[in-house]
Amino acid sequence: MTIPPTLETPRPSLDMGDFTRHDEAPGLVDATAGDHRIALTWADRRQAEFPLIWLRDHCPCPACRHPLTHERLHVPLEEPDEIAALHLEAGNLGLAWADGHISRFDAGWLYRRIPGQSFEDSVPARRPWAEDFRPAHIAHADFVAGAQGECAWLTALLRDGLVLLDNGPLADEEVRRLAEHIGPLRATNFGARFDVRSKPNPNNAAYTAIGLALHTDLPNWREPPDIQLLYCLENDALGGESIFTDGFAAAEVLRQTAPEAFRLLSETPIDFRFQDEEQDILWRAPILSLDDVGNVLEVRLNNWIRDSLRLPLEEMDGWYRAYRTFWRLVQAPERRFELALSPGQMVAFDNRRVLHGRHAFDPESGRRHLQGTYLDLDMCESRLRVLARKI
Amino acid sequence: MTIPPTLETPRPSLDMGDFTRHDEAPGLVDATAGDHRIALTWADRRQAEFPLIWLRDHCPCPACRHPLTHERLHVPLEEPDEIAALHLEAGNLGLAWADGHISRFDAGWLYRRIPGQSFEDSVPARRPWAEDFRPAHIAHADFVAGAQGECAWLTALLRDGLVLLDNGPLADEEVRRLAEHIGPLRATNFGARFDVRSKPNPNNAAYTAIGLALHTDLPNWREPPDIQLLYCLENDALGGESIFTDGFAAAEVLRQTAPEAFRLLSETPIDFRFQDEEQDILWRAPILSLDDVGNVLEVRLNNWIRDSLRLPLEEMDGWYRAYRTFWRLVQAPERRFELALSPGQMVAFDNRRVLHGRHAFDPESGRRHLQGTYLDLDMCESRLRVLARKI
Repeated sequence: MTIPPTLETPRPSLDMGDFTRHDEAPGLVDATAGDHRIALTWADRRQAEFPLIWLRDHCPCPACRHPLTHERLHVPLEEPDEIAALHLEAGNLGLAWADGHISRFDAGWLYRRIPGQSFEDSVPARRPWAEDFRPAHIAHADFVAGAQGECAWLTALLRDGLVLLDNGPLADEEVRRLAEHIGPLRATNFGARFDVRSKPNPNNAAYTAIGLALHTDLPNWREPPDIQLLYCLENDALGGESIFTDGFAAAEVLRQTAPEAFRLLSETPIDFRFQDEEQDILWRAPILSLDDVGNVLEVRLNNWIRDSLRLPLEEMDGWYRAYRTFWRLVQAPERRFELALSPGQMVAFDNRRVLHGRHAFDPESGRRHLQGTYLDLDMCESRLRVLARKI
Repeated sequence: MTIPPTLETPRPSLDMGDFTRHDEAPGLVDATAGDHRIALTWADRRQAEFPLIWLRDHCPCPACRHPLTHERLHVPLEEPDEIAALHLEAGNLGLAWADGHISRFDAGWLYRRIPGQSFEDSVPARRPWAEDFRPAHIAHADFVAGAQGECAWLTALLRDGLVLLDNGPLADEEVRRLAEHIGPLRATNFGARFDVRSKPNPNNAAYTAIGLALHTDLPNWREPPDIQLLYCLENDALGGESIFTDGFAAAEVLRQTAPEAFRLLSETPIDFRFQDEEQDILWRAPILSLDDVGNVLEVRLNNWIRDSLRLPLEEMDGWYRAYRTFWRLVQAPERRFELALSPGQMVAFDNRRVLHGRHAFDPESGRRHLQGTYLDLDMCESRLRVLARKI
């Protein structure tokens, strides 16, 4: 069986809806069919094997991928046919299956998918705060000017969990306009966009003038909001300086210095709950959530809405001791960053990692008004990947 | 030391911001201070011990709880003082601590918090579909009439993961109005409110007329939307019947009949990804996510946006075999519910549990138009708890 020639240069990587550029990757110089696999060699002498079932599953032809949505239509329900013919065409791979189906693969697209290879992402790894950590500052003008400034802002936010935007306009709803560069607002029981200021009938400590110890927002949700944006419009009251710390770094110190407390706080679910006339939002989770290999994924620390402790009697004293130990560690000055937000300045932070708080302020001495919203981490990462295509 | 009498009957349970009614609970008949604990006896002879640190942590006085937000102000950073005096007052508990602080506890509030006792929630447990499962139907008129209908709808949704609302108006945006009874819309890259119909330039298989195999939406998000609402405005095209199955029930059958496939699908993270000009949303997770004790928490199954399989070469064949086994189980007719949505009918389902799909339709034969949105499970549970206060 022979594979008919294509009329034009195949562009199977775009047919796969893949926006990563492959034009710098080397072409193929050899392809050999083996037992349920094909062995490939690229021009840089790199070699790899791909299972036939994998190749069949990833066929980019219009019958296997929807030509408009680029989504996979083929369902790999059968063991794949044998290969009837294979050849290289301008350095790319052409395959004819025993049933007559033809598949063409871009050499660069395959090169980036060599089995066992790790994925190259524009999203940076999280970096714990060093003791002298200071967040990146991006100018508002650079953020709105184009991909470069917004990329720098997103990279710092995703890497450090905290970033500042300076010298923005004193404009109502500017926080919403900035957030909507990235994605839709994440609405909660406090609305899609909230005002942080001292209010007459507060339903939340943030809406008073009291000091707020370091905490995360909404641990009583199964999925607390990821990224919080707080945009300062007015801040001439006495006090009210913002406080931040890296909860992941604090958790690592706890793991090193008080392993039993770390174990208790990561293995003991407790309740967080907010009730008012309209809402009753309750979730049970440990203070520290770990992934399968024990890395800290999320910190839930919020003493205001920590609900009644429901544990067997004999576990309570130990849990309180562990809580107290972590609470003190979180306050440690060496991992603490404080600043008085200036009007026109916005802070953004990862609410599941970085704890935030503020000093008390005197509402009689002046005004303090922040506008806030939440964003999904998924949207921040997506936006960074899309912007990185252009840089 | 004596505890000063209160001027009025204490209402410490409301001071705790607790909306659960405690007036049916028995009063206290005895309280005895022991070693770091207090032993209590209620009028029904039930006995329990509470640690002093727990009682101090839960003091409902206005210095320990914010009188307006009802949030906890006290941080349990010190070992508690000893008890200087305790007494019962109208069946409730009064405590004087050695430092002079006074705490008063409602007997019914304590009764519901006896250590080791499980929590009574209005939110029903999930119930797997039996083979003859048919979803509950609630009339639109009952849903909007008051707490009873909406409670029935929420209870069925949270218990079964699927519920129908019948005989609603053929009104644009009715799905948004119904959703906003419950909570704010969960916006995604497809917007806060989306139209499901055949479109000229689709970026998603749902926006074509092709058949859709059973799937979950947006497994490429770290947190896919919880609850999906689909409101039918027009449906006179040939075909297009909706299909549903209980993914948790299918996963349990997999666990029983093909444990190795269950293990592979629950332990092997794979990539899901959606890319277009504006978005690049990528998440790596297993098809089946389990909790700490092995219960299925979430199903991610979406063959269209399953990304290139990135696994070590030797794991690929096994993964495809497991995928195929689960795929076939999911299609099994005995756990499948099909219906042709009528105009004015809305289906709601738990997108992380119940898989949905549709038969192909012929867009030349008539119109098919659904309006959809997503809601957070947190908001559905909260709404049910609040409505249950009134019933």
